[in-house]
Amino acid sequence: MTTVPYIHEIKYYETDRMGITHHSNYIRFMEEARIDFFKQLGWDYAKLEAMGVMSPVTKVDCQYKVPTTFGDELRITVLVKECNGIRLQLLYQMKNQHGVIVCTGSSEHCFINSDGKIVRVDREFPEFFTSIKEKSEEHSL
Amino acid sequence: MTTVPYIHEIKYYETDRMGITHHSNYIRFMEEARIDFFKQLGWDYAKLEAMGVMSPVTKVDCQYKVPTTFGDELRITVLVKECNGIRLQLLYQMKNQHGVIVCTGSSEHCFINSDGKIVRVDREFPEFFTSIKEKSEEHSL
Amino acid sequence: MTTVPYIHEIKYYETDRMGITHHSNYIRFMEEARIDFFKQLGWDYAKLEAMGVMSPVTKVDCQYKVPTTFGDELRITVLVKECNGIRLQLLYQMKNQHGVIVCTGSSEHCFINSDGKIVRVDREFPEFFTSIKEKSEEHSL
Amino acid sequence: MTTVPYIHEIKYYETDRMGITHHSNYIRFMEEARIDFFKQLGWDYAKLEAMGVMSPVTKVDCQYKVPTTFGDELRITVLVKECNGIRLQLLYQMKNQHGVIVCTGSSEHCFINSDGKIVRVDREFPEFFTSIKEKSEEHSL
Repeated sequence: MTTVPYIHEIKYYETDRMGITHHSNYIRFMEEARIDFFKQLGWDYAKLEAMGVMSPVTKVDCQYKVPTTFGDELRITVLVKECNGIRLQLLYQMKNQHGVIVCTGSSEHCFINSDGKIVRVDREFPEFFTSIKEKSEEHSL
Repeated sequence: MTTVPYIHEIKYYETDRMGITHHSNYIRFMEEARIDFFKQLGWDYAKLEAMGVMSPVTKVDCQYKVPTTFGDELRITVLVKECNGIRLQLLYQMKNQHGVIVCTGSSEHCFINSDGKIVRVDREFPEFFTSIKEKSEEHSL
Repeated sequence: MTTVPYIHEIKYYETDRMGITHHSNYIRFMEEARIDFFKQLGWDYAKLEAMGVMSPVTKVDCQYKVPTTFGDELRITVLVKECNGIRLQLLYQMKNQHGVIVCTGSSEHCFINSDGKIVRVDREFPEFFTSIKEKSEEHSL
Repeated sequence: MTTVPYIHEIKYYETDRMGITHHSNYIRFMEEARIDFFKQLGWDYAKLEAMGVMSPVTKVDCQYKVPTTFGDELRITVLVKECNGIRLQLLYQMKNQHGVIVCTGSSEHCFINSDGKIVRVDREFPEFFTSIKEKSEEHSL
């Protein structure tokens, strides 16, 4: 299954007085892109939560290459770096409307149930696991 | 019981590319000041929630008088306009470090329990109600 | 010229621990809808700023009718209540994906130039003024 | 010169519907702590900007150890990892009110002038450079 980049248009309130998008907001764009990526794979995050699985962020990093500002349009590509049932690693690449890479990043996630306990997503939600896992194998071919 | 103004120092990320504090943030400062006001009256909002009472916002308004920016220090005064057990109305006045009124606002709240049902706070949480009510009478003297 | 509602999908990071969209975010949605409304009228806000006109918010109010949460999709309609060259008043109505009104609000704006001085937009930017003004007359017919 | 940890109390609006502080906010706390750290060293960031030097973030990373929520109080320690005149690297450690490390992170910065050009802070702002540099040597002793 092919996924398409997620589009985020920079909002006025996402800029700061340096005139550019505040760096903290890219972490939020990564979340938006991740949720959209899951959705494209057939997994609505709100439904996953309703099923009792959540994927809190355990690590995040972000490299800012080129500043953006209000009105710019980001295209965010998400790749699965690793998914082993207890840990999910995602990579992000953000390009602006001119095709220039403005930001790269990654995030790492565990999976917990509604009691906050760590779950092995490969055992307890095998279908979800498989569809993520397939994406990780894709770009290692 | 006398309450003291709540202090909020404007953060860099609260500014926008106009160079000033983004107007939406004042609604957040009102929340901060409200929670601090409750705390000064002896009611820790996290504990209120743990007791099963929440006060969602039903209305809010804000009048922006003078812009502020990063590094400015707001002193926010909260007054109880009305509290009748089902509805709470609060007034806010924000001054900058020079004593100039930069913003005024108000908020209106109902009370709900953990099931999301409306509760009469005068009946179900009479002590909480009384301490708020007393504040409303104070400034009508 | 007919404008269409602006769509905002509630983001995960826009919710709070009450499980609902934090009330401050609706003020941001109003800004998004306003900027989109201007764009539909042919006025790109970034270009307006580049031309030297900005429209800071002088007042805002919001009435919260029904809570929303992550995954909900808001359709936001903007109406011009008044535009007299020095003051612009806008009305907002937000419906969820089920057609239920979840929030109404209004905002008031002045116009300033890049030096922060108040400008009469009817005199200095007559084309912009006219296209806004026309919208205000529309729904008073 | 000894610096003291920066205190940040988690705000209600900083939580999400998982019931915890949204992970993106820690990037903002790092900014708050960094600005406070500069201030303790005698450098008011607003004044630095007025002097024409800004330090945009070029990289950031964050490791989330323990969730926090509304009412928790973070103590954030900032260390200078490296400062060589063109690049500044800072380390952050965040503890909650119980002394538990909840988050660690780092940020990397360059320095630009008001035209957005890269500046060598050791040459153009030697006093600022020296006071940062001294902090980096401190903990390598």
